Amino acid sequence: MSEKITIIPDPKTKFFYGYPSNVAVIGVRVGDKQNFMPAAWNVGLSYHPPLYGVSVGTERHTHKLLSEAESFTVNFIESKYVSKIRSLGRSTGSEMDKIKEFNISTSEAEKINAPMLGFAYCSFECVKKESILIGDHTLFVGEIVLIKVDKRAVGIYNTLHTGEISPLIYLGIDNYITLDKNSRTSLKELPPHYKDGKFR
Amino acid sequence: MSEKITIIPDPKTKFFYGYPSNVAVIGVRVGDKQNFMPAAWNVGLSYHPPLYGVSVGTERHTHKLLSEAESFTVNFIESKYVSKIRSLGRSTGSEMDKIKEFNISTSEAEKINAPMLGFAYCSFECVKKESILIGDHTLFVGEIVLIKVDKRAVGIYNTLHTGEISPLIYLGIDNYITLDKNSRTSLKELPPHYKDGKFR
Repeated sequence: MSEKITIIPDPKTKFFYGYPSNVAVIGVRVGDKQNFMPAAWNVGLSYHPPLYGVSVGTERHTHKLLSEAESFTVNFIESKYVSKIRSLGRSTGSEMDKIKEFNISTSEAEKINAPMLGFAYCSFECVKKESILIGDHTLFVGEIVLIKVDKRAVGIYNTLHTGEISPLIYLGIDNYITLDKNSRTSLKELPPHYKDGKFR
Repeated sequence: MSEKITIIPDPKTKFFYGYPSNVAVIGVRVGDKQNFMPAAWNVGLSYHPPLYGVSVGTERHTHKLLSEAESFTVNFIESKYVSKIRSLGRSTGSEMDKIKEFNISTSEAEKINAPMLGFAYCSFECVKKESILIGDHTLFVGEIVLIKVDKRAVGIYNTLHTGEISPLIYLGIDNYITLDKNSRTSLKELPPHYKDGKFR
């Protein structure tokens, strides 16, 4: 048993032990303004209906846009785009047009009014259903009405094809990483009740 | 540009393109009953106060326990424990004592009344603040009041030490994977406004 340390959270310290988290880039449009923001705090919330959540700090420009918008996209990207994503994350749409500034390719969502990231391997088109203030962030809950997925990304049982796609994963404080594709393990064929090394 | 396919969600099909997700094992106790359940849908929600969310299907035994409990733990584990986690995920505490059945080591939380996973590299002790029904799941929101973290897991800036810890990551349908520790990149030292290859 290795040694453990105790941290009591305080307002001055941030900690990132709940990471790694895949990066979701939120796309949103209000009038003629559109913007992309990477969010590490993104999560599945429901199968039926299919709901997805993105948590955005109340002070963010994207928070303002999401509060006004009726829909948004959630875009997943490969690790090779790390510097573009970092640029999108460390700048604000209140001071510039990030899409022009960082030369971001976009495409148009089919079912909603929002931009999609051109180089995403997967995009969810989401209709905003709820905005829930939780602490210093708002959880925006979207119903996924359409999914665009790169053919290369389609794996067995609608899981990510990790042999083809190395997703961008966040560790906190501008530190990024990706998956070890050789470490994938499937335990699907084990009986439901499986005890280490023993079948019942 | 590679070819994209379109999926319109329907109630019969599950898709896992929002994954990978790190696995959080929820620990909860009500009276003399205690239980652990792995949750892929877990997420940071706020810095101040520090809030963390776990999304649990309304039909799960753990949902019943979390609805009654005032606190819970969130435990993060290394990939080498994959078969134990899969056992915890594919069984139900309504029919057995998972902790005995799968020989799970536990320890006691300090500030709350809940079990911690003995082999976790990090555990959050959470006081339940909100239970929000969202679709077919409830998002249980906990305030992190104490963190126990293995010394080996402590990395720079309170990020995960990925050279030491290979976290268990979920892809859906009993498929698991971990990180490629050699792929870690830090962009922390770049200027805030950085354009691919150019500084301003």
